[in-house]
Amino acid sequence: MKLTMRLAERSYDIIIKKGSLQNVGKLVNLNRKVLILTDSGVPKQYAQAVAEQCKEAFIETVEQGEESKSIAVWQKLLTRMIELNFTRKDAVVAVGGGVVGDLGGFVAASYMRGVDFINLPTTTLAQIDSSIGGKTAVNLEKTKNIVGAFWQPKLVVVDPDTLQTLDKRQFAAGLAEALKAGLLADSELVRIFEEENCEEYIEQIIYRSLIVKKNIVERDERETGDRAALNLGHTLGHGIESASSLQHGRELYHGECVALGMIPMLESEELRQQVLAICQRLGLPTQAKYDKEMALQAIRHDKKVNSDYITVVKIPKAGQFRLDKVPFEQVEAVLLGQAAEIPIPKEVKAK
Amino acid sequence: MKLTMRLAERSYDIIIKKGSLQNVGKLVNLNRKVLILTDSGVPKQYAQAVAEQCKEAFIETVEQGEESKSIAVWQKLLTRMIELNFTRKDAVVAVGGGVVGDLGGFVAASYMRGVDFINLPTTTLAQIDSSIGGKTAVNLEKTKNIVGAFWQPKLVVVDPDTLQTLDKRQFAAGLAEALKAGLLADSELVRIFEEENCEEYIEQIIYRSLIVKKNIVERDERETGDRAALNLGHTLGHGIESASSLQHGRELYHGECVALGMIPMLESEELRQQVLAICQRLGLPTQAKYDKEMALQAIRHDKKVNSDYITVVKIPKAGQFRLDKVPFEQVEAVLLGQAAEIPIPKEVKAK
Repeated sequence: MKLTMRLAERSYDIIIKKGSLQNVGKLVNLNRKVLILTDSGVPKQYAQAVAEQCKEAFIETVEQGEESKSIAVWQKLLTRMIELNFTRKDAVVAVGGGVVGDLGGFVAASYMRGVDFINLPTTTLAQIDSSIGGKTAVNLEKTKNIVGAFWQPKLVVVDPDTLQTLDKRQFAAGLAEALKAGLLADSELVRIFEEENCEEYIEQIIYRSLIVKKNIVERDERETGDRAALNLGHTLGHGIESASSLQHGRELYHGECVALGMIPMLESEELRQQVLAICQRLGLPTQAKYDKEMALQAIRHDKKVNSDYITVVKIPKAGQFRLDKVPFEQVEAVLLGQAAEIPIPKEVKAK
Repeated sequence: MKLTMRLAERSYDIIIKKGSLQNVGKLVNLNRKVLILTDSGVPKQYAQAVAEQCKEAFIETVEQGEESKSIAVWQKLLTRMIELNFTRKDAVVAVGGGVVGDLGGFVAASYMRGVDFINLPTTTLAQIDSSIGGKTAVNLEKTKNIVGAFWQPKLVVVDPDTLQTLDKRQFAAGLAEALKAGLLADSELVRIFEEENCEEYIEQIIYRSLIVKKNIVERDERETGDRAALNLGHTLGHGIESASSLQHGRELYHGECVALGMIPMLESEELRQQVLAICQRLGLPTQAKYDKEMALQAIRHDKKVNSDYITVVKIPKAGQFRLDKVPFEQVEAVLLGQAAEIPIPKEVKAK
């Protein structure tokens, strides 16, 4: 399957195909210097498979985890490219999840004011969500994604075969973004989650999610209007992510927090029950303990918070959304009040 | 005088007017948080005059000089904006020369993936050259402008009154970029330099130089073709800048190096003599001692050097240019061989 992001001179293709990692060189020019960025949690054979298709490949492996999305690591990579005499015509390839995608994207965006970026996401979250939209960033101290650029990739290659090496919980967490896409604009996708086997339908799920995101991003590349819809579940989700340190003896994943953040945005009780059932089916959490004050503070610092009001995405029914502007004073009631109302599920079970 | 840069959704105005620094708030929205970036060499009253027009102004003064164009300083400024709760709708204003313009531009380009940038250049060099084109950057160790972004300002305000506080040598060095513009595409501008009083004609000189640059940049925003013409004198100039440490007991300025770098690119002996006379009239150097090997090495590392060849800008006659591709092996002969032929002037006199 193939999708074309239409963004004038920044247009690019997204290829969704099993085994496509072995054929990247046929889809884009790798006959040059290529910095291949991956992390210690990604099976080495993926970066290696890409390196074999390049004229001159340099694999850089950063530590797995959000800590690598730092200015220090970004600077180290830029320094490496200078040492290797990378020119404007060379390229950066990211092989891994959202961290290497965001980091590698910002390296590519800022080296010599921009070189080609090719994104090869290998996690459900990255394949469904961060592979599209051109957002690149690193964190600065505790503020997530505060430094970055809009930089569209030259090509995105999604190889669902790489998901086989992903652990079940990460696989499920990534699907939260697909569920988000369905709730926003594709009720058929919500039905698939309710009734079908997600592993069997994975290409379909990725494709449909990307279509939803593509339509929104193409309408609003620089996030001045409707693109805010993609923040469904993220305002509260980021707050929970910052505030909750450990849940069931483990940290919550980004996708899990998004799932938790979406639930209070569902406006009918029926839809809420339906989504809670889907979350349980997928192994996504439906409740979490966290310090509400801390979450609120994190939301206040969240970059989507305008000084006077906050934009919240509500779902009246599956496949439809509405943007609500809420004065910041009311955020606590709207977000945290309702969050507290999430029904407690019988058991959170791994898929 | 007013110029409009036409770059689709990134279009912006350049206002050239004496006293305009006092009226920035009438030209652009300053009714928000504004980070005013200036340096220790810029008279304080300029930043202060802008601050008085803002709703919430925060003046940040960096050390004068190229050392401030570093990732460390850039990061410090971003951290300050986070502390001050800057949002996407707030703005960065640069008041000063090329250093604060480049640095402030990259801060604006990368904070939250881009906030409004307003450039108020106060040196001839910045008013003529770096205020246009959207190039922002910082240095990484010894590599100049290697990290940055193309980020167009929201508005550029050129107030020629600010040049009155500039020392004569800096004033002249900046004019080298105007002379470059004339040589590339405006023979009348070359005539002004030959016959008129530059201080009297300064608005005219700035305006005509910007028109030349504007026409080239609009045709080629991201520097893939003709925009390379703007590098006239810069390839060799950067080499000289890196290699020559002290000349007549003082470091050479960027504009002075550009002047030196342009001379071997003039293809007729008559034009060469004409330009040498202009340089002497302005107080620009026409010769410099530098380590040629070191200069060549710097050119090799220069970002405009492609791996296989180098693009050189030649001037067959005043107002016309031609781009020549030269294999890197021949660079020494083409650049340094001819540079050695620069006639030695009687005396370099300050204007």
